Amino acid sequence: MHNKFVIEALDQGLAEALINKIDLKTKPQGSLGQLESLACQIGQIQQTLEPEIRQPKMIVFAADHGIALEGVSAFPQEVTAQMVQNFVNGGAAVNVFCRQHGLDFEIVDVGVGQLLSEQGVQLCKVANGTKSFLNADAMSKAQCLQAIDVGAERVAQAAREGSNLLAFGEMGIANTASAAAIMAGCLGLDVSDCVGRGTGLDDQGLQHKTAVLQQAMQYHQGEYSAQQWLAKVGGFEIAAMVGAMLEAAHRRIVILVDGFICSAAALVASQINPLVTQYMIFCHQGAEHAHQRLLEALEAKPLLDLALRLGEGSGAVLAYPLVESALVFLKEMASFDSAGVSRERD
Amino acid sequence: MHNKFVIEALDQGLAEALINKIDLKTKPQGSLGQLESLACQIGQIQQTLEPEIRQPKMIVFAADHGIALEGVSAFPQEVTAQMVQNFVNGGAAVNVFCRQHGLDFEIVDVGVGQLLSEQGVQLCKVANGTKSFLNADAMSKAQCLQAIDVGAERVAQAAREGSNLLAFGEMGIANTASAAAIMAGCLGLDVSDCVGRGTGLDDQGLQHKTAVLQQAMQYHQGEYSAQQWLAKVGGFEIAAMVGAMLEAAHRRIVILVDGFICSAAALVASQINPLVTQYMIFCHQGAEHAHQRLLEALEAKPLLDLALRLGEGSGAVLAYPLVESALVFLKEMASFDSAGVSRERD
Repeated sequence: MHNKFVIEALDQGLAEALINKIDLKTKPQGSLGQLESLACQIGQIQQTLEPEIRQPKMIVFAADHGIALEGVSAFPQEVTAQMVQNFVNGGAAVNVFCRQHGLDFEIVDVGVGQLLSEQGVQLCKVANGTKSFLNADAMSKAQCLQAIDVGAERVAQAAREGSNLLAFGEMGIANTASAAAIMAGCLGLDVSDCVGRGTGLDDQGLQHKTAVLQQAMQYHQGEYSAQQWLAKVGGFEIAAMVGAMLEAAHRRIVILVDGFICSAAALVASQINPLVTQYMIFCHQGAEHAHQRLLEALEAKPLLDLALRLGEGSGAVLAYPLVESALVFLKEMASFDSAGVSRERD
Repeated sequence: MHNKFVIEALDQGLAEALINKIDLKTKPQGSLGQLESLACQIGQIQQTLEPEIRQPKMIVFAADHGIALEGVSAFPQEVTAQMVQNFVNGGAAVNVFCRQHGLDFEIVDVGVGQLLSEQGVQLCKVANGTKSFLNADAMSKAQCLQAIDVGAERVAQAAREGSNLLAFGEMGIANTASAAAIMAGCLGLDVSDCVGRGTGLDDQGLQHKTAVLQQAMQYHQGEYSAQQWLAKVGGFEIAAMVGAMLEAAHRRIVILVDGFICSAAALVASQINPLVTQYMIFCHQGAEHAHQRLLEALEAKPLLDLALRLGEGSGAVLAYPLVESALVFLKEMASFDSAGVSRERD
C-alpha cells in the first residue's frame, strides 16, 4: 500500500536561497528565531521564494475505542458522538479557533459508535469503534488500511478544493490510551513511560489506566512494524491521520501537527516513510506526560507550550497565526537596501 | 510623582465567577491551560464576565543611548533613527505583524539622536540620547520623570481613543546593555549574569560588552531605588515604557509585555508599584541570556518561546492572537448543557 505515498525530500538548494532572502530583511540575522525556520520550510515545501497559504483547513477525525470500556478515560464513551455533534454545531474549542483564524473545518466519522445525527458529518465509518486491545487486536489489517485510506481521501479532496495547508485533529474517548500504546510499541518503551492523565484522570485513574495498558502490552508483546502496532493498539481516527499525513506530504501540503495523539500518528507515519516529517509543523507540546519524549523522538521543537490537554486539533489552530506570520514577514518586510538601514558591523 | 499611578488590585471574587463560567464550557476542566488563566485575568482587569478587546494598539518608544559609543552593540548608533523611519514606512517586523493582527501602531521619539524625518513620528524628545552611563548618570532625575510622563501621556491618549489593550515595544541601539544594567541594579545581581548577545554579538563582542558593563556598575555601585537605577543606567525609551505600564494599569488597560528590554521596564514598574504586574501579560521569552532569570524574578510564565531576539515589540504582537483566543473561547464555546455533552465522572 505504501507505494502510492511517494514523498520527495525537500530541496536544500532552495533553503539557501530562502535564507538569503530572509537575511536581507531589516532585522538582525536569525532574530526571528523559529519563524525563520518556518518560512524556510514552507518555501521548500511549496518550491518557491514566495510561499503562501491557500484555503487552510482543519480536518478532525473521530472514532470510538473499545478500550474505553476498561475505564481508562475521565469521560464516558458517549461523549465521542456528543462532541461530533458539538463540532457540527460549531460550539467546540476547535470550531471557535478555526472561525477566529479563517480555517475551513471538516469533521469525519471514521468509526464513531453511533452518531446522533449524520448531518454535517463526513461519513467514512470503518466500524462502530475498535475492539478493546486489552486482549485482541483493535482492528484487522484490512480495517487499518481502510482507515488509512479514509484519511488519504479526505486530504485528496481538500487538495482538489485548493488547500495547501492542512491541520489534523481528533476526537475519541480513550484515545490517549491508544496513543500511549502506539508510542510504547513503535519506540520500544515501557508503556508506563508513555501513559498520562489524558483529559484529566486523578491519581487513582492514572494508576488504573497504567495497569490496563501494561496488561494490554503484555498480551501484544513482540516485534512489529509501525503499521502492525497501529492495527493492534491504534484507533480508526489515528489510522486516518496517518493516511492523511502521508497523502499530504505526497502532495506537498503543509501539515500542522496537534498534540499527543496527532504526534503518535506522526510517529507511525514517520516510521512508514521518514520523509513525511519534512512536511510537518509541530504546533504544541501538550500537558500529557510523555508528549515531550515523543516529540524528542520525532526531533520536533513545537511552536507552543501552553499546558493544553484538549486535543481536537485545538493547539494546531492556536499556532496557525505564527505560521502565517512566518510568511507575512517574508513577503512584507523591507530590506536593508530599500529601507536605507545600516547593517551589522563585521 | 507615583501618587498619580494608583493601581487597584484585581478582584479575586470575580476570578471565581470567571472560572465557573470557563468550567461550563465543553472541554475537560483546565484543558485550555494558559488560555484559561488569560481569560480569567482579562475578565478581572475589565471587571466583567464578558471581556473584550477594543482598539488594540502597539506603541513603540525609541531613543538613543550614550553607551552605544562604547561599542556594545552589533549595529551602529545611526540605526535607531533609520529604524524609526522604517517603522513610519511600515517595513519593520512589528509593522508587518501589527497589520496581520489588526493592531494600531504608533512610534514615539523619546530621545533619538537625530530623526531622518519628523513626519509620522510622535515627537516627545527628552534629549538627543542619554549620556554614556560608563562614567556618568544616563539622565538627570528631571529627565527621567519627563520620559516617564511621555509614556504615561501616550497611554492616556490611547485610552481616550478607546484602547483597552496596549502592547509596548522599543527601539534603541545598545538598549540591551541598559536593560542588563537595570536588571543587575534592581535585583542586586552581578551584571555578568544579566548581559547577553543582544541582537547578535559574537564571543569577542560579548566579552567587551560585559567588561564595559562591569566598569559601569563599578562606577554606579551603591544601594538605589528602581527609579534611581532607571536614571543612572536606563534609557529614555525604557523610562517611557515604565510610565506607560504604570498608567495603563492605573486605567485598567491590559498590558502586553515584549522581550528582555520591556521586561526590564516591567521590573522597574513593579518595584515602583507591585500591583502593576497583575495587568501584564508576558508574551515571550527571548533568546537573550538572562531573560529567563528576569522573568522568574517577575514570576512570569510567558506565552511564547520562539528564540526571538528582535525587540520592537515583535514578540508581543506575535502572541496577540493567543490573547484573542482566550476571549473568543470564553465568549463562543458551547456549554455542556447547551451542547448536550456528558461531563467528567466524579
